[in-house]
Amino acid sequence: MLHWLKHYRRALLPGDLSAGIVVAMMMIPQGMAYAIVAGLPPVAGLYASILPPMVYALFGSSMTQSVGPMAIVSLMTGAALAPLAAAGSGLYGVLAAQLAVVSGVVLLLCGLLRMGFLANFFSRPVMSGFTVGSALTISHDQLRNLLGAPLPDAHLPSALLGLGSLVALVLARRYGAGLLRRCGMPATAADIGAKLAPMLVVLAGIALMSFGGLAEQGVHSTGTVPGGLPGLNLAISSPHWRTLLQPGLLIGFIIFLMSMSAAQSLALKRNQKLNSNQELFGLGAANLASALSGGFPVTGSLSRSAVNFAAGANTPLASIITSCLLAGALLAPTGWLALLPLPTLAATIIVAVLGMLELDILRTAWQYDRSDALAWGATCAGVLLLGVEAGVIVGVALSMGTLIWRASRPHIAVLGRIAGSEHFRNVERYPAQTQPQLLVLRIDANLFFGNVEAVQQRIEDELACHPSARHLVLVMSAVNSIDTTALYALRELNLSLKRREIGLHLAEVKGPVMDRLRESDLLAQLHGKLYLSTARAWDDLHGICAHQEVAI
Amino acid sequence: MLHWLKHYRRALLPGDLSAGIVVAMMMIPQGMAYAIVAGLPPVAGLYASILPPMVYALFGSSMTQSVGPMAIVSLMTGAALAPLAAAGSGLYGVLAAQLAVVSGVVLLLCGLLRMGFLANFFSRPVMSGFTVGSALTISHDQLRNLLGAPLPDAHLPSALLGLGSLVALVLARRYGAGLLRRCGMPATAADIGAKLAPMLVVLAGIALMSFGGLAEQGVHSTGTVPGGLPGLNLAISSPHWRTLLQPGLLIGFIIFLMSMSAAQSLALKRNQKLNSNQELFGLGAANLASALSGGFPVTGSLSRSAVNFAAGANTPLASIITSCLLAGALLAPTGWLALLPLPTLAATIIVAVLGMLELDILRTAWQYDRSDALAWGATCAGVLLLGVEAGVIVGVALSMGTLIWRASRPHIAVLGRIAGSEHFRNVERYPAQTQPQLLVLRIDANLFFGNVEAVQQRIEDELACHPSARHLVLVMSAVNSIDTTALYALRELNLSLKRREIGLHLAEVKGPVMDRLRESDLLAQLHGKLYLSTARAWDDLHGICAHQEVAI
Repeated sequence: MLHWLKHYRRALLPGDLSAGIVVAMMMIPQGMAYAIVAGLPPVAGLYASILPPMVYALFGSSMTQSVGPMAIVSLMTGAALAPLAAAGSGLYGVLAAQLAVVSGVVLLLCGLLRMGFLANFFSRPVMSGFTVGSALTISHDQLRNLLGAPLPDAHLPSALLGLGSLVALVLARRYGAGLLRRCGMPATAADIGAKLAPMLVVLAGIALMSFGGLAEQGVHSTGTVPGGLPGLNLAISSPHWRTLLQPGLLIGFIIFLMSMSAAQSLALKRNQKLNSNQELFGLGAANLASALSGGFPVTGSLSRSAVNFAAGANTPLASIITSCLLAGALLAPTGWLALLPLPTLAATIIVAVLGMLELDILRTAWQYDRSDALAWGATCAGVLLLGVEAGVIVGVALSMGTLIWRASRPHIAVLGRIAGSEHFRNVERYPAQTQPQLLVLRIDANLFFGNVEAVQQRIEDELACHPSARHLVLVMSAVNSIDTTALYALRELNLSLKRREIGLHLAEVKGPVMDRLRESDLLAQLHGKLYLSTARAWDDLHGICAHQEVAI
Repeated sequence: MLHWLKHYRRALLPGDLSAGIVVAMMMIPQGMAYAIVAGLPPVAGLYASILPPMVYALFGSSMTQSVGPMAIVSLMTGAALAPLAAAGSGLYGVLAAQLAVVSGVVLLLCGLLRMGFLANFFSRPVMSGFTVGSALTISHDQLRNLLGAPLPDAHLPSALLGLGSLVALVLARRYGAGLLRRCGMPATAADIGAKLAPMLVVLAGIALMSFGGLAEQGVHSTGTVPGGLPGLNLAISSPHWRTLLQPGLLIGFIIFLMSMSAAQSLALKRNQKLNSNQELFGLGAANLASALSGGFPVTGSLSRSAVNFAAGANTPLASIITSCLLAGALLAPTGWLALLPLPTLAATIIVAVLGMLELDILRTAWQYDRSDALAWGATCAGVLLLGVEAGVIVGVALSMGTLIWRASRPHIAVLGRIAGSEHFRNVERYPAQTQPQLLVLRIDANLFFGNVEAVQQRIEDELACHPSARHLVLVMSAVNSIDTTALYALRELNLSLKRREIGLHLAEVKGPVMDRLRESDLLAQLHGKLYLSTARAWDDLHGICAHQEVAI
């Protein structure tokens, strides 16, 4: 925490300063736009961009993450609050803050419980399907603002302004950087400059509203943006806490996944290390700060963080500079922002979220692993058809299903002895000797509830294939843990084999596993022996078998 | 399907017949009791015991499973329906049937999608914690019926009858079998005879009501049980389908887990094989049949199936005989059942569910694996404090968390060469040679989204420990699959190593994995080579390193 501040060098300042300024210019239209997506007054988006990034700078783990409003989290916020209060009402704002509290507390708790491993929860195809579905949902929702009215009744001046803004933004996105480069700008500066197109288009929109008489034509604008910094307070009296629990949990989960994937892709570029537990903590604190200062749920945004990174951000100081500039903008007269035309803002939202439509993962998955492509499709369809919250649940169910399915197929090999050596190998892959009375199985997985059934089944199948086996040797060299469920299964296996007069022997049990097994009664009841090596088991049981055969 | 019927031998009949009769005598009080737990009129429990077991006999996978009402599933049904309709009302009955439809469809779909692997979802400690929490909840709920009124205002005659029944049942449970054995009964018959105590206590209760004047004292009875078979119909017009979706999903899940654990413990005793997908199918069909015939969600019951098994059931014919006997009971005059005193029925419920309080798993887990004991406690507390539905969700969350946590810790070994051989071994466990320019890592897990992050992290950590490494060899001998997420991670690793001028080489890639990788662009872009064996990589890269050193 604040490690970066202790080691701050002056040489880092120019990068942080330029990144801070660039991101502030990006944040003004984006913050207002995403507040609208969440169903809140635009100023809430600016509030959510001041205190939360500062708090994240204190507690977070990424050097270049830009924390603030983000399209998908705003969509989820709007979806969660729409049934509870009228958009724009006082209650709606209170509930948005409370949702940030719930998400923040969830994130903090997960951080305290060191549950950062949850970042591995979604596969990339599921995450991409979710992102694409959300982006399409947001675009569709914003069509109404872009055209000034629902589709068939489009308001002509609004539609012209909206579509004009859209075209300008798309052109700037595609050709802006090239144009600036041809005007002599260095490549990096040109790339960053092109990212400021939304701010320019917004300024042009405001100018058209002021001087082009668009307001008189009936084009809606964002309306008065109150000046001054947000007051610090937290309305905690509400009958809706319980209702907010489930969406808050899901939003907290998505906040973490989105932020981690943004931070990781940037950290990778500089070989920096992330601490997922600290990230949980930083995001939790940022959300509580957002709730305290009139905001709503916030997270790290990939697009904004990438600009921050590209513009030279070296440390979280860049984010602090951005926050200060935004605070300055709110302290200065804010009358000009009131004239921001909604169609233009809708155009910036649509262009921003359509930038998330990366279909590369779908294409790769389709070629490489059809089931991953199906997971992509199911998650995307879940968001589009059932809503964004159901989309998360579909993603969770798919990931869960995949995890159990994978866990339930452990690798188990029948071993044989390589002639003239002490080595044992998979008989399917090596020419190895076997004995009819002896079945040697190596279990290549930790034994736990997820695979115990499959292991039992496989053992029974192999015993059925080796009807003359009198001894089963389990080679435990790859087993690093055995949980309580697996302990019960081993006990049952032991009893069942005993009933059939088949010995159960364990070989190459690792030290820590053996220490645990000694705490149980399995070893005392074992209808067989423990062997340090498979070779010793082979020699010993070979003798027993031969002896028994002679006896018969 | 119906495999057992094709191969039916006459010798199997006596066992099936005796089991069918015994289970029918057990089913009458149990069916009525569990209907009351679900908030339904007692006759619904009898209806749910006629058609569903017959349908299960056609489609199910277990030879000895007794499908019908079951305590925990009834508790969940009651919990799901209580907020939607008044217990005992017509709407309540319709909703109970619809809940069975939802659960049945969920089970059938899971069967069609071959999702039987979900049976491995809960660990035994979680399952046991859930069962104990549910049993305590049911007992607590039934106290009111046992005493005729809530605790402080107990109705004396009811309480005396209830507590008397309870004592009789507990004594029968503890000493019944021994007593019968001492009277000269064979051991098995005595054990089974003792299980019929509830029926005897119920008959005694009815006699007391009829001739002891208890009804006049204000002891409540079950009321008229309508005679005749249930009509077949399905009321599908209801505004509650959507509301029933979540509880139906959870109930379907628990139906499957309960039934599988019952069937497995019995199949194990006779070395029979279960097909979990067929079990899903059988349970789904049984629930649809229940909905069609005036019942509510049903499942396989461990206690009843164990009696069925012990009484000699060889095939599902035993269940069909039970069904026919119950149908016969409904076709005969049913006036006598109307006088069944509720306190006695409550006593049978309490004794039945307290039989589920097996604390052995908690004890074992506490000694063997504290975290499993904690999972037990959390699930049990979840059911007791938050309700049975939340208890399932707590169990799911715990299992999910454990799965991800386990998946996110793959085993990775740094390999060295055993001097004078072609063998490579973990340098931590064997005295093996290493080279400073060469880092050889063996990944002992399939690569997928759940562990890709951990693998990346470990590789970076090892590279940091081996700063002079110019070549990284990944030994893929234990990798059986690489999903899309892992493919992306390998691509990123390749780019990142290329930037640092470190070669990335793959050795011992298995055939099927290689076939898949050829579908991607990873191999074309690989900043390194593919090797058939680790030894060849070692020799080849050793040469390159030496050469480079000379060149420098």
